[in-house]
This record gives sequence, structure tokens and C-alpha cells, in this order.
Amino acid sequence: MTQQQAIEIYKENRRKLLAFRYVDFVTSWDHETEAPAGAIPLEAAQQAVLAEMEYKLQTDPLFQEAVESLYGDRGSLDPVLAHELEEQHRQIEEMQKIPMEEFTAFRELLAHTYPVYVKAKKQNDFASFAPYLEKIITYNRNLTKYLEKPGKRGYDVLLDRFEPGFLKTDYDRFFGLLRQKLVPFAAKVNASPLKGDFSFGKCQYPKEDQIRFCEYLRDVMCVDRDHAIMRESEHPFTTGFGSEDIRITNHYYEDNLISSIFSAIHESGHGLYMAQVDKALNETLSWDGASMAMHESQSRFYENMLGRSPLFWKVHYPKLKEVFSEQLKDIPLNIFTRYINQAQYSFIRTEADELTYPLHIMLRYDVEKAVIEDGLPATELPAFWNERFHDYFGMTPPTDTLGVLQDVHWATGEFGYFPTYALGSAYAAQIYSAMERDLDVEKALSSGTTQEINDWLREHIHKYGASKYPKEILKIATGEEFDPQYYVDYLIDKYSAVYYFSR
Amino acid sequence: MTQQQAIEIYKENRRKLLAFRYVDFVTSWDHETEAPAGAIPLEAAQQAVLAEMEYKLQTDPLFQEAVESLYGDRGSLDPVLAHELEEQHRQIEEMQKIPMEEFTAFRELLAHTYPVYVKAKKQNDFASFAPYLEKIITYNRNLTKYLEKPGKRGYDVLLDRFEPGFLKTDYDRFFGLLRQKLVPFAAKVNASPLKGDFSFGKCQYPKEDQIRFCEYLRDVMCVDRDHAIMRESEHPFTTGFGSEDIRITNHYYEDNLISSIFSAIHESGHGLYMAQVDKALNETLSWDGASMAMHESQSRFYENMLGRSPLFWKVHYPKLKEVFSEQLKDIPLNIFTRYINQAQYSFIRTEADELTYPLHIMLRYDVEKAVIEDGLPATELPAFWNERFHDYFGMTPPTDTLGVLQDVHWATGEFGYFPTYALGSAYAAQIYSAMERDLDVEKALSSGTTQEINDWLREHIHKYGASKYPKEILKIATGEEFDPQYYVDYLIDKYSAVYYFSR
Repeated sequence: MTQQQAIEIYKENRRKLLAFRYVDFVTSWDHETEAPAGAIPLEAAQQAVLAEMEYKLQTDPLFQEAVESLYGDRGSLDPVLAHELEEQHRQIEEMQKIPMEEFTAFRELLAHTYPVYVKAKKQNDFASFAPYLEKIITYNRNLTKYLEKPGKRGYDVLLDRFEPGFLKTDYDRFFGLLRQKLVPFAAKVNASPLKGDFSFGKCQYPKEDQIRFCEYLRDVMCVDRDHAIMRESEHPFTTGFGSEDIRITNHYYEDNLISSIFSAIHESGHGLYMAQVDKALNETLSWDGASMAMHESQSRFYENMLGRSPLFWKVHYPKLKEVFSEQLKDIPLNIFTRYINQAQYSFIRTEADELTYPLHIMLRYDVEKAVIEDGLPATELPAFWNERFHDYFGMTPPTDTLGVLQDVHWATGEFGYFPTYALGSAYAAQIYSAMERDLDVEKALSSGTTQEINDWLREHIHKYGASKYPKEILKIATGEEFDPQYYVDYLIDKYSAVYYFSR
Repeated sequence: MTQQQAIEIYKENRRKLLAFRYVDFVTSWDHETEAPAGAIPLEAAQQAVLAEMEYKLQTDPLFQEAVESLYGDRGSLDPVLAHELEEQHRQIEEMQKIPMEEFTAFRELLAHTYPVYVKAKKQNDFASFAPYLEKIITYNRNLTKYLEKPGKRGYDVLLDRFEPGFLKTDYDRFFGLLRQKLVPFAAKVNASPLKGDFSFGKCQYPKEDQIRFCEYLRDVMCVDRDHAIMRESEHPFTTGFGSEDIRITNHYYEDNLISSIFSAIHESGHGLYMAQVDKALNETLSWDGASMAMHESQSRFYENMLGRSPLFWKVHYPKLKEVFSEQLKDIPLNIFTRYINQAQYSFIRTEADELTYPLHIMLRYDVEKAVIEDGLPATELPAFWNERFHDYFGMTPPTDTLGVLQDVHWATGEFGYFPTYALGSAYAAQIYSAMERDLDVEKALSSGTTQEINDWLREHIHKYGASKYPKEILKIATGEEFDPQYYVDYLIDKYSAVYYFSR
């Protein structure tokens, strides 16, 4: 076939793949926020049929021939299309190696698993979830066999799917630096409780007021209401379709002032990334973030670098005091900012502070490695988890709800995802340092919105979407290769200041 | 092909068609209740691609050959499959006559139209909606040309799509009887205002309390929470997937006590019909109601025959007084039941009482006939509407929001739908009469729930789903052919009693 023919075949198929992505997006959203529980089995069966149709599109011989031919010729194509073909080529190669029945059965399994997981977490009943988890693990172990290559074996295969090019040796080096520098520093911080009466953080904060303040934050972050909605779910998440439809969820705990606030900022960071991708990419398969870690770098940047800074709250604390006038009437700004920057060992990853957060990730990295490479069965996860948790934090989760059941990721099939969270925080520190060369961040924040900062991120990161690999984008944005030293320095500087240590 | 081969091909394709129905269901629900406005254009484009794929499934030559062969042989098939094949045969015949580009462009047009309509209605701005409506009308006029047959021409074609076998001559006869008996009776009632101070109906009724009472009604009607959800939308509606996922919306007006109550009962009537279809039909294409009018007969039966009866409120008025203790403290039961059974000319169909309701339908029947058969252009609809409205009701809507813009149906492409509403009420009266032969309805209601009545309807109507034509089901349920005299008698008896007329 000629290049022109190949491009036409490719684009025709891409149009349909995009429509199926839309279906995935809407049906998943519906399952997680709307569909009645009793409807799940019948609807999971429909999702399996759809997955099968999508698989057939992806494995259509004519489409694959077109990709093959364009891939070989990608030097002569426009760079966005060339990058997309590289990705499609990789995905087709993967799809050809995964048996179709296994792929569709896995999709159906996941739809059945979700409500079981939600119930198990609620009732602290790991045993009811274990048989589902075991099947999910088996699928992931099988994947490592189907997709291995020279230099990419076992857990590498799963890691590479979430952060292209980041394998065990990379993470071992990254986590090695953290183990050497941060783990002892975190222990020192944990042993030095901050002075102050922080009991205000556990007053009653009515849900509707929390929602009102989160709506305010949405405007501070300039998240366009015409393209973004906010709803509730068990575990906060962000999803979207192209740069046009951004959906953010939150979870409100009435006895916790800050959980929903930082979830809102975090998830809006993901949302802004999606919303600021170049609109020209909406018709391609490259409209989302560049990778999991790059996505997480944006949410963490807004949540931690901006959202926990005294500068941010100098501007927005008056509004918070207005919404919670009774609860915060005697709490000055400096006590509030100290409160939100406490670091202390805790059980729940999503509620963890910035400093002890990476320890939670290192724990999950250890668990996933043991599950995928050492054959640890699902039933033994609670014991393994609790033991390792004790190694890192010197304490044991009292329930599985506060332990191995806390995160949704394994229930939704994702092994190899967690490590990207820590990597994202490290990207964020490096990006922050680059931003400060161009921009007076303090001045930008004092304007009342994050618009100027959003603009910098759009120009240096967001606009590229997934049309380049994360390593390329990091290089463009910061002028350097990935360097985790920025992250270590950032954390040690920040917490030394908060805790009045001399370095 | 052998019969066995044909059945296999048919079932394989049906499986996929069912999955696309699920996609239609979820994406439409999402558009109407959830998706941000700015996302509509990009997502409408995806829906168009999906419609195209669905169309290809329906027009697949092998599938059509299988349908053709099984259709010819349907006498030897099980009756459910035989009926489904009759329907598929008819649909394929239709699809072959509608050009694919027109079909997909229409789907995309509808997705664009919905937000325009919502805005136009809000702002009383018919002009902004008119160009969209004109295109929708053109498509419907074209349909009548593509699908006409001997004995089925013009508006007949559209009517037949919503209520199989009911054409202009049938409706002319039905509406003729109403014009002769009901129109003068309604005028007499309208001229005799009911005695009583009904100003309590327009107090403030906070939305959250209305929602609470509607939730109570859901339990009274035994709508299973595990399979049904209730949400809000501009115009109340019910949708579902199989008997497993029922979605009901409502709209709450804080200065109106009864609007949300009767919408809740009405929509739950639709919901119960869907929920009580035989579960064995979930894997077929026959799991919804038998027709538009049969669906409407169920919602109207619950809303009017049960929901407005003194018997019903004898049981449930104490709960209503508990929820609105301040507003209803001086209002005795008999004043409340008189209030909810007032009949008076009004502008809004969905808020109209049972007696004047069919006049609203007759008006729309006249408008649709003029649009489809006499070439009335969209721009002239407001004037035509207002003139005819004056003929029926002796008054003129002060705005288009209270006139031609009030209903969503034309904006969602549906011409030929409205007449089924009146037909549904007439079915309901005939079914009610049959039910009373088997069941002491008063005793059933006094139990506190509608369970016994639900059971009767499941056995006589609901369980069949769409596996039979409405005329057959009506015959099974009532032992008779359709007879509109039941409806006329029911209304004249009821309102003669309410208004103390002697007949």
C-alpha cells in the first residue's frame, strides 16, 4: 500500500478506536458513580462484548499492515503522527501476544470485582476479595510472560506499561536514594511532634460547606466550569475525554477538614493537565497526559508545592475562615499552615503527608515485586503487607481496611502503577525548580488564582499531551535529564524549615 | 443456510446490538444528566461514529440473510424469537430505506440540539431553536417518504413507529370520540371552580423535603433500590437497561407541592414496568415495554388511577403531613384530595390534570399533522400553536416557554410520539376495569404498598415486555379489543363526582 493509503486506513480505524475510548470513558464513569449495584452483572457482560469489538479493531489485519508500513516510514511523517505510530506499533505487538479470551475475560472480571472490593473495604473483609484478587494477579503474571523481551523481564514488563522506559533498575536506584536520605530523615521528623493544638482539624465540618470550599478552589485554579464537573465517589479520581470533558470526584469526611481540600487540589491538577492539552490532539490518540508519573507530577505540584505553601494560604485562608467561621475562629494562619504541613507516620497513603508518602509507595513496590516475581499468593498479602509496613513505619495497621485494602488500584487490575506516584513527586520537584527560573511564583499566587502558573505548565508540559514520551517532555521543560536529587533536597529543605532543624 | 446456522448468526449479531443498546443507554443518560456542556460537540461526534458502527451491524448482509431466512420460517420458532424476528425484519426493511449519511447526521444533529433547546426554553427564545427544529422536521418528512407503504402514508409512517398498527384513521376516530364527549365536558368543569382555599399548594416546599417524600413513595411503590436510581433533570424521564438498571429523574419546584410527587409516581410506573419484565428477556431485544402507549398506560395508571385516589392518600397523607408539618398543618385530607383532583385549563402539558390532559395531546396531534403533511415550517410553529391552543382552551400562552417550547420531544427528534400519551391513558382505564374484576384495589392500597397491584400488572402485562404487540397484550390483560369508551366513562364518572355534577 502507498503511504497515502496507509494513512487513510490508519485514520479511519483511529476514528473508531477513539469512539471506543469514549465508550470506555462514559461506561466506567457510570459504573463508578451512578449505576445501581444490581445492574453490574448484566452491564459487565455488555462491556465484555464491547471490549471484544475494540480488540478486533486493534487487531484488524489491514489496520496492522497500515501501522507496520507507516511505522517503518515514520521518519517522513509529522512528529505527532510518528509518535502515535510508535505507540500503536507497541500496543499491537502487545495485543498480538495476549490471547483474546484472556483479555475479554479480564475486562469482565474487573467489572465484577469493583463492587466486591468496595464492600470488602467497607466491611474489613479481605477474604471475600481475595479470590478476585488472585485472578487479577494471575492475569498480570501471565502478562509478564507474554510481553517479556531481552532486558525487560518479570515486574519490568508491568512497570514499563505505566512509565515507558522506567524499569526495576531505575526504580531500585531511585528508591535506593530515598532509602538512604529520606527514610532516616522521616524517622527523625516523626519523632519530633510539631508544637500546637491541632484539634480543630477534627471538628465537624459539614459536607455541604466542604463542597462549597472545593468549588471555590476550582475557581482559584481556573478549572473551566463549562468543561469540568465535580462529583463524589469512594476514592477520589479524575477522568476525562479529550481536553473537553473533565470529571473530578472527591470524598468528604465530616470529621476531617483537609482531606477533601487537598483531594480537590490534587485532582484538579490532573484535570488542568487534561484540559490544557493542545486541542488539535483531540482527534488523535494522544490527548491525555504523557504518562502516569507525568500526570502525578502535575497533581502533586498543585497539591504540595502550591497547595501546602504558606503563600497560597496567605491569599485563601480568609475564605476558608469565612466558610468555617465557627470552627476556625481562633485559629491563626500560621497554626493552620503548620497543621497542613505536619509529617507523621500514618496508615493511609492518600492521607499521608508529602514526606512520609514515598515510604507508602516503597512498601507497595516491595509487595508488587513479591507478588509478581516471587509468587506471593493473594491470601498472604495482608500478612506480608503488615510485616513490611512495620519495617518502614514501626507500626502495624489495625485492620485491612487501613492496610492492604485501602487502595482501589489492584481491584481495577493495575500492578506497576504505584511506583509512578513517587516518581511523579520527584518530577514535580524538578519542574518546580525550572519554573522558578522563569516565574516569580509568590507573585503569581498573590494574584488570587493560579492562572500564570497554569500558563507556564501549559506551555512547557501540558500542551504536548501524550504526543511525546515523558523523558522528552521533562527535558524540554527543565533542560535536564531526570534527577531525583531535586526531590530529596526539596523535602529536606522544606521539612527542616517546618521543624526548625538545622541541616 | 440451515435454521441452526441462521439462529447462531442471528444471536451473535444480537449480542452486539444489545451491547450498542447499552452504549446508547449510558451515553444518552450521561448527556442528559452529567456531561459538561462544553464537551457536547466532541462527544456528539463520537456518538455519530458509534451510530455508524451500529448501523453496519444492523445492515450486515449475513445478518440480514439470517433474519430473512428465519423470518420466513418463524412459525417453527419459539414465540419470543419469532416476534423478535418480525420486529427485526421490519427494522431492517426500514434501515435499508434510510440513507446511512442521513441517519448518522441526524444522530449528531440531535446531540447538538439538546443543549440549544434547554437554553431556548430557559430564555423563551424560540428563534434560536428554530433552525435546529427545521432540520429535525426535514428528517422526519424525509422518513415518511422513505418508509411509506400502501395504506400507510405521510404522518401514518411516524405514528406507526411509536404505536404499531395505530394510524391516522385510528387516532382520528379516538380523538373524535374525545372531541365529542370530553371537550364539552372539560369546558363545563373548567367553568365550575372547586370550592376551597388551595393556596397551601403554592407555599414553599424545600427541595430536600420533596426529595425525601419522593424516596418514601419509591418504597410505597416497591421500586427496588438495588436496581433503580433517582436523579434530577430538566424534564422528568425514565430510562433503563433490561430489567436490571432503572433510572428515574424528577424536577423539583420549591413553590409547587405536587409537581414532583406526581412525576415521581408517574416515572416510577414506567420504572416498574421495566423492572417487572421477565428476566429471561434481558438477553433478547424484547426487554422494554411493548409500546409507547402501553408504557404510558402504566405510568398514568399509577399516577392517576392510584396516585390521585382518596384511597391512596387515606394511607399516605399522614406521611406527607409529617414531612411538611408546617405547610400542611391546617389542611385536612379531603381538601388535599380535592386539590390534587382539580381540573382546569392550563398551559403546561406535564402539569395538566387528567381531564384536560388529552386536549393538550389533541393540540400536538394537530400541529404534527400540519408540520408533516401540510409543510408548516418551524418558524411558524409558535403562531400555529397559539392559535390552536386558543381554539381548545380559549386562552393564549403568554410565552413560548409556556407554549411551543415546553416539551423536549421535538428537540430529541420525536414526531408521532405525543398521541401515544392519550392512547396510554385510555389503555389504563380499560386495564383498571379489568383489574377490578380480579382484585379489591381499595384493600390492596390499604396495605401501605402497591405490591399486590404490581403483581397483577406483572402477570397480566409487564412480564411480556416487548415480546408481543401491544394489541395482543391488551387483549390478554382485558379480554377485549381496545375500547376508548372506558376512558370517557372513567373521566366523566370521576369528575362528575369531584364536581358534584349529576350525569
